[in-house]
Amino acid sequence: MKQKKLLFTPGPLSTSATVKQAMLEDMGSRDTEFINTVKEIRSELLRLAHVSQQEGYESIIMQGAGTFGIESVISSAIGENDVLLVLANGAYGERIAKMAGIHKLNHHVLRFAEDEIVTPEATEKFLEEHNDITHVACIHSETTTGLMNPVESIGAVCKQHNKVFIVDAMSSFGGVEMNMQQMQIDYLVSSSNKCIEGVPGFAFVLCKRSELAKTKGQARTLSLDLYDQWKGLESNGQFRFTPPTLSILAFRQAITELDEEGGIKAREHRYKTNKKILDDGMRQLGYKEYLKPEIQGHIITSFLYPDDPNFNFEKFYSKLNERGYIIYPGKLSKANAFRIGNIGQIFPDDVKGLIAAIKEVMQEEKIMAEV
Amino acid sequence: MKQKKLLFTPGPLSTSATVKQAMLEDMGSRDTEFINTVKEIRSELLRLAHVSQQEGYESIIMQGAGTFGIESVISSAIGENDVLLVLANGAYGERIAKMAGIHKLNHHVLRFAEDEIVTPEATEKFLEEHNDITHVACIHSETTTGLMNPVESIGAVCKQHNKVFIVDAMSSFGGVEMNMQQMQIDYLVSSSNKCIEGVPGFAFVLCKRSELAKTKGQARTLSLDLYDQWKGLESNGQFRFTPPTLSILAFRQAITELDEEGGIKAREHRYKTNKKILDDGMRQLGYKEYLKPEIQGHIITSFLYPDDPNFNFEKFYSKLNERGYIIYPGKLSKANAFRIGNIGQIFPDDVKGLIAAIKEVMQEEKIMAEV
Repeated sequence: MKQKKLLFTPGPLSTSATVKQAMLEDMGSRDTEFINTVKEIRSELLRLAHVSQQEGYESIIMQGAGTFGIESVISSAIGENDVLLVLANGAYGERIAKMAGIHKLNHHVLRFAEDEIVTPEATEKFLEEHNDITHVACIHSETTTGLMNPVESIGAVCKQHNKVFIVDAMSSFGGVEMNMQQMQIDYLVSSSNKCIEGVPGFAFVLCKRSELAKTKGQARTLSLDLYDQWKGLESNGQFRFTPPTLSILAFRQAITELDEEGGIKAREHRYKTNKKILDDGMRQLGYKEYLKPEIQGHIITSFLYPDDPNFNFEKFYSKLNERGYIIYPGKLSKANAFRIGNIGQIFPDDVKGLIAAIKEVMQEEKIMAEV
Repeated sequence: MKQKKLLFTPGPLSTSATVKQAMLEDMGSRDTEFINTVKEIRSELLRLAHVSQQEGYESIIMQGAGTFGIESVISSAIGENDVLLVLANGAYGERIAKMAGIHKLNHHVLRFAEDEIVTPEATEKFLEEHNDITHVACIHSETTTGLMNPVESIGAVCKQHNKVFIVDAMSSFGGVEMNMQQMQIDYLVSSSNKCIEGVPGFAFVLCKRSELAKTKGQARTLSLDLYDQWKGLESNGQFRFTPPTLSILAFRQAITELDEEGGIKAREHRYKTNKKILDDGMRQLGYKEYLKPEIQGHIITSFLYPDDPNFNFEKFYSKLNERGYIIYPGKLSKANAFRIGNIGQIFPDDVKGLIAAIKEVMQEEKIMAEV
């Protein structure tokens, strides 16, 4: 048996042994047992977002990466006469802007610096200046940097101005308490391999049925047609196209384990504890975070490269890897940084272990990170 | 431990325990070990198609269902001035025609009856009458019925007329010896959960580099952009968007086990043996196949419903299910039938077991299938 590696990444994450073991059974994609599992998961996801079908919300699973889920919403929800506003302060906001371009949607992009949050004030001003806008898209936890945009305040502005609000909650949902109704979110997108702690294979979209109903025949693709995917699941409980059966079985187990942990609130607490240990440890070693603490989220952190010629990221990464710790490269446009996530099956002792390993590697490589 | 169920479906299939066990390890999607695995799989897939990078072929993995792989080709390869001919004799050909419509591609559909093969003669005649056609798409094993289209002869016609040839080999690749070069195939699409006997999670596209190179900037989506997906994999070995890491680990193991079985030739032989036992057994029980034997493939078979009011498919299905055998509903447009696949980890004794279970259920339900 190889040494178990711990993933300090934004996902795919470290998952429990029991989540992975749920995949040891073959299951037919049109079999009743599988259909019931899918139905259960779709309903559980709404519960986790504090909404229900009775309250007018729907839950749709889309095969593929999280980005496929985002594209299914962007390329299905924005009609020919609609206008999308993309709020961007990182690579994931830019990705939505890119999709809008590819699908030739009417759209604006309101950009913020990578180390600043999207503000409700600037959003409101922009909406007032551009009253043709019908939809607003925003990233919740911007994984590029690790910052957390104030989605609830932005949602309030959107509702006041009667806009449809789309939230990319990829790396936050399940790790942050979110009440879709209270946060005024019309479309929320996340994926199987993030804070619910399942394995990769699919994205999911939670949305208001009244909005979804307007998207019929509007999609620009067959595979990512959100409305048809929903109708398929509703008609006979089956997917239109082959689902990732085993990832779905793992996900059912992951939801059970989330509940056993005490739900999203308890998980959020664990992640925040991990984050505190990480920050304290890294600061003691001399590392500096890229973001101001007040806008930093508790999901993933960008640490600036130490100002020491002995620091070589590839070497640093592979020496940590040899010790069983997988960290994540940076994605900033203007600064050199690496990222460390603290989500998934990562516990305080694991974070301490990572800090000790980083210290060891620094000593071996004679890296000074005092700032 | 629940009773192990055997899937007599066109996929997801029954897979070996060791293929599923390969998923018990978490792996980072940007980690060197994962990158090497992806590289190895991409190269192995070309080997299985009897081509190589040196000979000008490329291998691309696309997240999602097989249909996502097909749509990535259709929506990337057909340029604005190109014209696609879709050869259709079942639901999968029609699906490609639907994609062509959604993406507003210039296209024709040449339709054949569901119980007839696509003929090279009719294809040639159509190509001669419509010399604006640049690309031809055809299904190899039409899972709707189970027939096998003569892809090699159609490929010869395409090459003679200088057309780009796209083959949906979803349910055939790995279960039928295919030499891409000899069959004149420019794009071949299949998926992880078919005859290679992996688990669901992704599709793959094997194609001629010279054709792929022409598709730059031509895709109509971000997620399914075949060229960009290729460039991403080539630049740093990583996926643009989160890959189904564990399905990929399972697939590597599945390829190893395919080789251990003796390669595609040996697997084809096993499937054909299964098919013969299935046919003999079903005929003895009085069932009749939908297709003429000479066009029937060895992957999946459509059996007509017995002409007996005691036969109720739902009941029949669930009684077989209780016995551990999962069969598949029909998809014919003009006849009532159910389907039985004989691919995946299914061996002659399993087929005999299924036949015995069908006999038992027929006795219980007093079904006569004499024809």
